[in-house]
Amino acid sequence: MSTDQKRRSDCAVACSLDILGDRWSLLIIRDLFFGGELRFADLAAAAEAIPTNTLADRLRRLEDAEILARSRYHEHPPRYAYRLTERGRALGPVLAALADWGAEHLPGTRRLGIR
Amino acid sequence: MSTDQKRRSDCAVACSLDILGDRWSLLIIRDLFFGGELRFADLAAAAEAIPTNTLADRLRRLEDAEILARSRYHEHPPRYAYRLTERGRALGPVLAALADWGAEHLPGTRRLGIR
Repeated sequence: MSTDQKRRSDCAVACSLDILGDRWSLLIIRDLFFGGELRFADLAAAAEAIPTNTLADRLRRLEDAEILARSRYHEHPPRYAYRLTERGRALGPVLAALADWGAEHLPGTRRLGIR
Repeated sequence: MSTDQKRRSDCAVACSLDILGDRWSLLIIRDLFFGGELRFADLAAAAEAIPTNTLADRLRRLEDAEILARSRYHEHPPRYAYRLTERGRALGPVLAALADWGAEHLPGTRRLGIR
């Protein structure tokens, strides 16, 4: 796993944030958690309007971290669909905890049906 | 709350990540969760060696978001100590979920006594 190379400490929280600590990765994981297998265009269409170059970068990093896997659904030109691995689906409690906290402490936010 | 101004959607996960979605904020929260009231130098001494300008920026953002509060402990020059608010302590389950996931899925990481 390439993510091992840049660990800041052996703390499980810090190492998780080395992979997940940005504004977008957990939103991609949220969409795959609820949407199952999704294409690049599906992910780019999320309400938060992720820039496509950022989306491509995060998909590559999350695949390197074995959180998601891709499969080719079109040969010429090559097109891929993405789904969570078992390791990726295990992030459900992280999504749920963030959703619980946000819905309780950030007025006007809503909690999707996580958990 | 200034963080309301840059919301990307009304999703509670997205809005939480607008505040917490970086490599450092939840580590500062981790240290305050276990350490109680800490001074700037205490926070800068964490194993992950946060750059001091990044630490100062994150402390300001987390104070704006009412996740932490500061109190002056020295007048000249002014020096501050930081502690979690109730809203900040409510992030315990987020830390716990990240620690659980990391300890289970990232070999060689260890879980502090969260929860």
